[in-house]
Amino acid sequence: MAPDEAKSEPAAEPAAEPTAEISKKGAKKAEAKAKKEAEKARRKAEREAAEAAKNEDAAAQDAAKDDYGEVDDKLPPMTGEKINIRSLGKEHVGKVIVVRAWIQNARAQSANMTFIELREEGDWTIQALVVANKEQGTPSRPMVKWVVGIKPESFVVVEAKVQEPLEPVKSCRIADYELSIQKCYVIAAAPNVLGMTLAASNRAITNFSDEEPVKKDSEIPDASSTTTSAIPAATMLTHLDNIVIHKRAPVQQAIADIRAEMKELFRSYLRSHGFKEFEPPCLIGAASEGGANVFSLPYFDKQAFLAQSPQFYKQIEIAGGRKRVYSIGPVFRAENSNTPRHMTEFTGLDMEMEIQEDYSEVLLMLEGVLLHMFRGIKERCPREIEVVRSVYPFEELQLPEAGKEVRLSFAEGQKLLREEGPPEFRDVSDDEDMSTPQEKALGEIIRNKFHTDFYVLDQFPEGARPFYTKADKTTKTSRGFDFFLRGQEILSGGQRINNADELEQRIRHKGIDPRSPGIKEYVDVFRQAGVPPHGGGGIGLDRVVAWYLGLPSVHLVSYYPRTPKRLQP
Amino acid sequence: MAPDEAKSEPAAEPAAEPTAEISKKGAKKAEAKAKKEAEKARRKAEREAAEAAKNEDAAAQDAAKDDYGEVDDKLPPMTGEKINIRSLGKEHVGKVIVVRAWIQNARAQSANMTFIELREEGDWTIQALVVANKEQGTPSRPMVKWVVGIKPESFVVVEAKVQEPLEPVKSCRIADYELSIQKCYVIAAAPNVLGMTLAASNRAITNFSDEEPVKKDSEIPDASSTTTSAIPAATMLTHLDNIVIHKRAPVQQAIADIRAEMKELFRSYLRSHGFKEFEPPCLIGAASEGGANVFSLPYFDKQAFLAQSPQFYKQIEIAGGRKRVYSIGPVFRAENSNTPRHMTEFTGLDMEMEIQEDYSEVLLMLEGVLLHMFRGIKERCPREIEVVRSVYPFEELQLPEAGKEVRLSFAEGQKLLREEGPPEFRDVSDDEDMSTPQEKALGEIIRNKFHTDFYVLDQFPEGARPFYTKADKTTKTSRGFDFFLRGQEILSGGQRINNADELEQRIRHKGIDPRSPGIKEYVDVFRQAGVPPHGGGGIGLDRVVAWYLGLPSVHLVSYYPRTPKRLQP
Repeated sequence: MAPDEAKSEPAAEPAAEPTAEISKKGAKKAEAKAKKEAEKARRKAEREAAEAAKNEDAAAQDAAKDDYGEVDDKLPPMTGEKINIRSLGKEHVGKVIVVRAWIQNARAQSANMTFIELREEGDWTIQALVVANKEQGTPSRPMVKWVVGIKPESFVVVEAKVQEPLEPVKSCRIADYELSIQKCYVIAAAPNVLGMTLAASNRAITNFSDEEPVKKDSEIPDASSTTTSAIPAATMLTHLDNIVIHKRAPVQQAIADIRAEMKELFRSYLRSHGFKEFEPPCLIGAASEGGANVFSLPYFDKQAFLAQSPQFYKQIEIAGGRKRVYSIGPVFRAENSNTPRHMTEFTGLDMEMEIQEDYSEVLLMLEGVLLHMFRGIKERCPREIEVVRSVYPFEELQLPEAGKEVRLSFAEGQKLLREEGPPEFRDVSDDEDMSTPQEKALGEIIRNKFHTDFYVLDQFPEGARPFYTKADKTTKTSRGFDFFLRGQEILSGGQRINNADELEQRIRHKGIDPRSPGIKEYVDVFRQAGVPPHGGGGIGLDRVVAWYLGLPSVHLVSYYPRTPKRLQP
Repeated sequence: MAPDEAKSEPAAEPAAEPTAEISKKGAKKAEAKAKKEAEKARRKAEREAAEAAKNEDAAAQDAAKDDYGEVDDKLPPMTGEKINIRSLGKEHVGKVIVVRAWIQNARAQSANMTFIELREEGDWTIQALVVANKEQGTPSRPMVKWVVGIKPESFVVVEAKVQEPLEPVKSCRIADYELSIQKCYVIAAAPNVLGMTLAASNRAITNFSDEEPVKKDSEIPDASSTTTSAIPAATMLTHLDNIVIHKRAPVQQAIADIRAEMKELFRSYLRSHGFKEFEPPCLIGAASEGGANVFSLPYFDKQAFLAQSPQFYKQIEIAGGRKRVYSIGPVFRAENSNTPRHMTEFTGLDMEMEIQEDYSEVLLMLEGVLLHMFRGIKERCPREIEVVRSVYPFEELQLPEAGKEVRLSFAEGQKLLREEGPPEFRDVSDDEDMSTPQEKALGEIIRNKFHTDFYVLDQFPEGARPFYTKADKTTKTSRGFDFFLRGQEILSGGQRINNADELEQRIRHKGIDPRSPGIKEYVDVFRQAGVPPHGGGGIGLDRVVAWYLGLPSVHLVSYYPRTPKRLQP
């Protein structure tokens, strides 16, 4: 507000203009109030004008006044080379550069000097300082003072000279250079108080409850696990309520990078093996695959459902003449499970392929792509993995040597459990599906015996597989398999039935009516034309990334986790 | 059925065992009927046994009997090299190979010779023949006869010798080689009558109505447009009811390939420019962006909505410290529009990026990625484009030379319309959004004037843009732009407001309550921390592919089109 304006309109409050509707008594009261407020406003305006005059005076004396401040849209001209912090090198020393970054923190050393930490994408941090320069007049002492007041997580542009610090700056990722700031503009200011500090957001989360948080023992920071143990850990709910700061945490940036690269590794491997991408629909006309846990919604004059998997559509692609297909997309489960393993929306990595001779072709292709992902991610994201490990310590994943992959039949797995597992699994049967504790116990045994955290369990009992799984007459089992990572299932796959009559028989055998909505249309696909033998598998991306990194919850690897209680942000 | 069994159980019909519940009269009648049927069954069994004996005899004499037939699961051993039709070369001539393919058609030349056409993925077709060989006994005449009876679109495995035909086979894509079949097994048989023939499915669709088809003039095949004009065109509904054959049509295979490559070109260009992929949610907690045309569904004890765009989430990513992001995924519109331009579920290609100096950075990046897609697809899919063109003729897309891209302001566009457009557009205003006919007319003018089908219209009036678009004080317009392809909008983008107060003001100005559900959470994102200036855009993949290929409907480029009336398959 300019001083002049403040003086000419001292009482702009609505109460100063009482209307006819107000009763006499009310009007008198209002008038008195208006007078009082007008007087108050006048005094305030005078104070402000005086303050402004003083500031103007100070600004006039501040030779640096154009070199700092908040800017709205257009920046004052800057001459330095625009550069990302990460690309700083010896060749920049002594040169002036322009950097756009977040203020991570600011600390006054004296009236003449302020230290700040600047951060770009991920955890690219660098130390910068503003030192008052009496001769040149800029940076000025007011500028030094102003900079220290910039709120953390404000976005700034600085022009600065690159210099080498006396000794490496251990607290920053860029340790060998520092910036001597000459100009500093706030482009987007952070609030006075953050909902969560960046330091807190980079601490390990231990409370993943969707209920309002209750302080538990497990939430008390574990001093041994990180270097920033003085900062208390926040709950997942606090993180989600402060999604911006949550995402800025280096650990979340690293997880997001790892997730994106895992996807890319899946995609590029399959592409290089002749797979073509396709997009299955999310909206479907019938609750297929059993119908439990499916979201339904009004769809004009009909009912629609959200797809639980692209299973049927992958198979239609094969029937429709595609030899090998993959899809990456959202799938939905209306399951009221409030655990760190569950979400209502997650990302499926799916593939399906023609079988030439034997369904082991499918198994080996899936094993190949997962090993490619696990080995590739170590090459592509070594630093990101270390950033995650520094917050969520985990044991290095053990992978089998090439040629020594572990592939057991379900019966062999059960035998191991009976013979080498804990006493409660002494009587597990070859005909019944495994429970989660059994899976974990078997994972332990296999890790000790074969030194791998990744293995395949094949030939599941027919009863444990969906109706579309092909049975094997020789082994009297299904041609279905699961893959495990750290003792937890990450993939389910197998050969599918490719003949309508056989499929219908199998559906009936499972107690489902083959003429029911969704099922009928599915079976009929195999009546439209001859469909070659085929098989495939589905991978839960969220779980693969979470278990690979040994994280306590899949909610940490989802960009926007959806749970029965949470749809925000 | 074996002859012995047929003899020993001549009357297994249930009517032969009348129960006590049947009345006397009824019982007598039933007895008579049972006798009659038993006699009938006996005679039938005798006939069958005689036939079987004859066949067995014939089979015994057929030296080729193990070289053909229907097989269930395991194939008889074959020694030839397994090969895809597409990789056939001179080096294979005279050699025996094994091919898995669909029977496209079969035609008997004589009792000693049958011609068949085999097809693999897409339109890789090759001629094959079965010639009876009296000396060797295989192929036999029964085999020649059996092969001609294989139903089109059955899936077969053949072992055959590669040979050079007397003259190139014009009807097949592989013209220089043919296969002399020695063994032929049907792995998956097609039905006796297909719901739609492959030839019909490869004809141009002209009827895209979702209502039950009524024969119209436009459906009568246009003899000039394709070479297979003798085959009548089917409606889109017939295609969807026969999705397997629909997808096997070479034109649909080509469209699917082009679509997948378009996506890949988008992805690889952005990746190479430092963009990182992320996944926005489909399930959201509030109907953001206005709330019209949004699907809603019961979500446990709450209500959920299906995202209409990843707009807010792209911006949260930028706020959350990602410099450049992109996403590829489904978006939903509950719009009751039954036109070839509309679908209720389609694929969005979205990107968002930090702005360093000016929002033209965003515009140029988007222009760059689209030109990369249009130029790249010609290089990657020249044949697929020709396959589409052979069914749906279209004019080659005109693209601007590098450095001569057409970027007009909205006002310049309107001026062109006023000055060079049809009379009805003589008074179009600079402050009102364009109608679809105006867009088309402007596309015409620009095509004639600048020889390009692709151009940018920038600086839209504020009133024509959503509330999150940044206004430009200098031009008094918004910083929003649209991209056009063949006179139709394919992209909408611009700079976004990155300050909570400005955003709130803008929302109010648009008549929306900034505290309403979904909007409040969105605005609050910009209060969590300083958010740098940013902008982005969204591309409708379905439309880009459809308009690029000049197709009459986006339904042709969707893998499983969803319309208000159609959720199947």
